Amino acid sequence: MNKAVEGLVSQVLACQKACQICFDACLKEDHVAMMAECIRTDRECADICGLVVDFAYRESNLFSDLVAVCVRACEVCATECEQHDHDHCQQCAKACRECEAACKAFLAA
Amino acid sequence: MNKAVEGLVSQVLACQKACQICFDACLKEDHVAMMAECIRTDRECADICGLVVDFAYRESNLFSDLVAVCVRACEVCATECEQHDHDHCQQCAKACRECEAACKAFLAA
Amino acid sequence: MNKAVEGLVSQVLACQKACQICFDACLKEDHVAMMAECIRTDRECADICGLVVDFAYRESNLFSDLVAVCVRACEVCATECEQHDHDHCQQCAKACRECEAACKAFLAA
Amino acid sequence: MNKAVEGLVSQVLACQKACQICFDACLKEDHVAMMAECIRTDRECADICGLVVDFAYRESNLFSDLVAVCVRACEVCATECEQHDHDHCQQCAKACRECEAACKAFLAA
Repeated sequence: MNKAVEGLVSQVLACQKACQICFDACLKEDHVAMMAECIRTDRECADICGLVVDFAYRESNLFSDLVAVCVRACEVCATECEQHDHDHCQQCAKACRECEAACKAFLAA
Repeated sequence: MNKAVEGLVSQVLACQKACQICFDACLKEDHVAMMAECIRTDRECADICGLVVDFAYRESNLFSDLVAVCVRACEVCATECEQHDHDHCQQCAKACRECEAACKAFLAA
Repeated sequence: MNKAVEGLVSQVLACQKACQICFDACLKEDHVAMMAECIRTDRECADICGLVVDFAYRESNLFSDLVAVCVRACEVCATECEQHDHDHCQQCAKACRECEAACKAFLAA
Repeated sequence: MNKAVEGLVSQVLACQKACQICFDACLKEDHVAMMAECIRTDRECADICGLVVDFAYRESNLFSDLVAVCVRACEVCATECEQHDHDHCQQCAKACRECEAACKAFLAA
């Protein structure tokens, strides 16, 4: 695996982790109703990140296509998480934005 | 793929579908807070079902191990869904119980 | 889930199954070396199909993005499988082409 | 996520990565036929590891069940990889054995 992909994978793994933790934490919040969209986007973003990592290791021709979907998944999840003050949401938003930037940089290279 | 596995796969696919639909519907309910555990178990059960189907088609040696985990996932999800009156929960509970029974029958054969 | 998505899901499930069976059968062929690229594309296509089904049931906003990736995965896998005379490859190629067409029709609608 | 789970996740991620790289490298070997079983077990082990990580982050009740399946997947994959001299197989075998040990230690704790 080349350095560019290796670096991207770290960001995607960090984003996936943040999304899974935020998903879990949102379900434990007092006001779950407010977190419904966050729960949904956390799961979607984590799912996409998981597939991106999977394909990165295998040097798939479809890798770039999945990275492009990951940009969208991160944007959607970050935009949602940024609306909530919970630490886990803020951390998730940050991880999503960093992952989004890393994906865009990879695609532009 | 032999008949026994083929039959099991149908049940697992039906269960996975019911869990995904219930997950989505729970997030749209007025009282999401009451559905938090349901949302969690729906996702887990759907994830396990997905892997079971995946391994069924490939005739993996680990198939039975995963079917055994699927029994547990279905039990947990059905027990949770049975506590809620929503149609999607009742349908999900039914699909989980049928899948649980099919998994147990497969393991006993 | 609306009718259009429901119909698409059937095609994607059939494609995923054909890819998994072809992956398994390719590994059992006498000339595995000739099947290397087929094994790779079978796995990739099955993985993408799995995620498409997963997101279909949850009415995700990212669904169309994944369906577009699925078009590409089916094209790549079908093109590879069409080069081999094995029944499992021919059946996989057929399932991939039908899935590709269904995905394109869905995106065009 | 507690320290014990965090440590386990690192091992599982390393194992998953080694399996994916070995899968890809096996398909590029001159004698793919000899690698057929390795290709199969690499994929299975990577799939199970992926689900273990996924469930670890979400503190699922089914986590231990999946860790137990992971022990088996690692054993099977390591036993296969240990028979091949390729660097990627040796590295994969090592990662699988370390993951297997980490999973067993976690379950025993």
